[in-house]
Amino acid sequence: MDIDELSTDILSSKRRALARAITLVESGRADHRADAIALLQALKDADHGRQALRVGLSGTPGVGKSTFIEAFGLMLTAQGLKVAVLAVDPSSARSGGSILGDKTRMEQLSRDPNAFIRPSPSQSHLGGVARRTREAIELCEAADFDVILIETVGVGQSETVVAELSDLFVLLLAPAGGDELQGVKRGIMEMADIILINKADGDLKATASRTCADYAGALRLLRKRPQDPEGFPKALTVSAAQETGLDTAWDEMTTLAEWRREAGHWDARRRAQARYWFEAEVREALLSTLRREPVKGAMERLAGQVEAGDLTAAAAADDLLTTYLQRGPGGT
Amino acid sequence: MDIDELSTDILSSKRRALARAITLVESGRADHRADAIALLQALKDADHGRQALRVGLSGTPGVGKSTFIEAFGLMLTAQGLKVAVLAVDPSSARSGGSILGDKTRMEQLSRDPNAFIRPSPSQSHLGGVARRTREAIELCEAADFDVILIETVGVGQSETVVAELSDLFVLLLAPAGGDELQGVKRGIMEMADIILINKADGDLKATASRTCADYAGALRLLRKRPQDPEGFPKALTVSAAQETGLDTAWDEMTTLAEWRREAGHWDARRRAQARYWFEAEVREALLSTLRREPVKGAMERLAGQVEAGDLTAAAAADDLLTTYLQRGPGGT
Repeated sequence: MDIDELSTDILSSKRRALARAITLVESGRADHRADAIALLQALKDADHGRQALRVGLSGTPGVGKSTFIEAFGLMLTAQGLKVAVLAVDPSSARSGGSILGDKTRMEQLSRDPNAFIRPSPSQSHLGGVARRTREAIELCEAADFDVILIETVGVGQSETVVAELSDLFVLLLAPAGGDELQGVKRGIMEMADIILINKADGDLKATASRTCADYAGALRLLRKRPQDPEGFPKALTVSAAQETGLDTAWDEMTTLAEWRREAGHWDARRRAQARYWFEAEVREALLSTLRREPVKGAMERLAGQVEAGDLTAAAAADDLLTTYLQRGPGGT
Repeated sequence: MDIDELSTDILSSKRRALARAITLVESGRADHRADAIALLQALKDADHGRQALRVGLSGTPGVGKSTFIEAFGLMLTAQGLKVAVLAVDPSSARSGGSILGDKTRMEQLSRDPNAFIRPSPSQSHLGGVARRTREAIELCEAADFDVILIETVGVGQSETVVAELSDLFVLLLAPAGGDELQGVKRGIMEMADIILINKADGDLKATASRTCADYAGALRLLRKRPQDPEGFPKALTVSAAQETGLDTAWDEMTTLAEWRREAGHWDARRRAQARYWFEAEVREALLSTLRREPVKGAMERLAGQVEAGDLTAAAAADDLLTTYLQRGPGGT
């Protein structure tokens, strides 16, 4: 593979090169991985200085996330911005389908020349999905996209992953009775920079306003974070179906991003994220040694002895690490 | 340390030896760890054949867990059974206090010669707490305890850990309106073998019965599991304060345990758990190499370069693993 050519094409914003590169970082093959590492480093060495606004977007099924992304994305492309949509969905491997489906749920946006939609990679574990998404973000940024939407369904740890991948974290919610406010876990609330109550239209308009006020109140009760200017985090109502409130939401996002940039929080966050993902990558790579021979076979034999009750887990683990993984005995 | 003597004393059910041994498995010192591994293996080699009924018990604060354990434990010791109480509480290190406090919350039980109460170890991460608890269970079993209650507050992943440590998983809940039924996560419900609605006394008695019926209905909607006989998982009401329903709860536990023993599920579960914990131990030990020099220092230097934007996370991780951790380049 010609890494230099691929790198140049990505920097020239060629879509097919971008798509090929994302396929490369998603591959599990060792030679592909070596190429992917070289490509990412080549793009970094090119020192392109491009930074997209990375917007993490979480919302449970039923809140109208696809409709929101379609309407929001089209509004941005109409302003001349280039928009990429990526997904973090660890369940896509299991269900056989991706969160973004076959793009049919964002029909117009997927045909927009200024938009690039990429479904979640088919990885069975969140760590794999996270790495591929993180690298796809770097590729989209090098290809000069202005806004990268990283979406997830709110399941398990995936919101945390998305928050660690983004400059801003947006929580998309549906109008609901006051009781359901508690349905959003406190930890997720604390990650949110902007909460959008969708479906603020028709019969639900009043409920949406009330829900918005409830969340605004809840946000005020949270501890003040250094990365927030006055008034943030913030709750707003939008209607993706009627395309109302989207411009205000975008204004708030850019205002917050701009403030963070000037206050130094933007760079600090990106640096912290870079460290976080490096450490995650090291851990994941280290653990992958357990899936390769001869360690894998030895581990299986020892597991059999542990199951049979002949060895304790502690002694077996110690044996494996001392014999196969060049570690001194007894350490913790 | 005389491992043989300690091992003999534990097998002779000497409490002080048991307490010392648990302190040993909780230690982070490398020499203590080597002794702990030797002790656990010596007990296994003694082939004592003792198996306690390990009961996992989860309940959020306010459900009356301490009162329940006190009353339930005293009922068991009155029957001549020896009862150990262990706790899995990853937050104990942070809050400075243990879930079991200074045993004052189980005053009578803690003075009972047939009971042994051990607070959660002060470990900052759940993996550490899990390992120590698992090893404490093995020690209590070798010391001839009949019942081991492993309790946790329902936070994050700790229920999963407790379920992986026990033969039966009991969920203790408070009476509540139907709306709050959804407050129990589906994943937790699916782990439960028996749900106990506590506080079925006084003003709350009717609510407790209704809550119990609600959960019984919810349990029937779950997919049938091979490890359950007809009628399980089951929901019951109890009152720890008035000591009612505890005997029925114990009957149901022993009935279920007996059935699983005869059907082969008991052994299968213990074997699967042994494998699970062996694999967890290997992963944890492998990752601990990252906290030791020279790897730790190299990782810190590379993290600095990643933060500064000079290196991609992928290239830096590859460098670290290839140079310091004897791994071939490019693998995943």
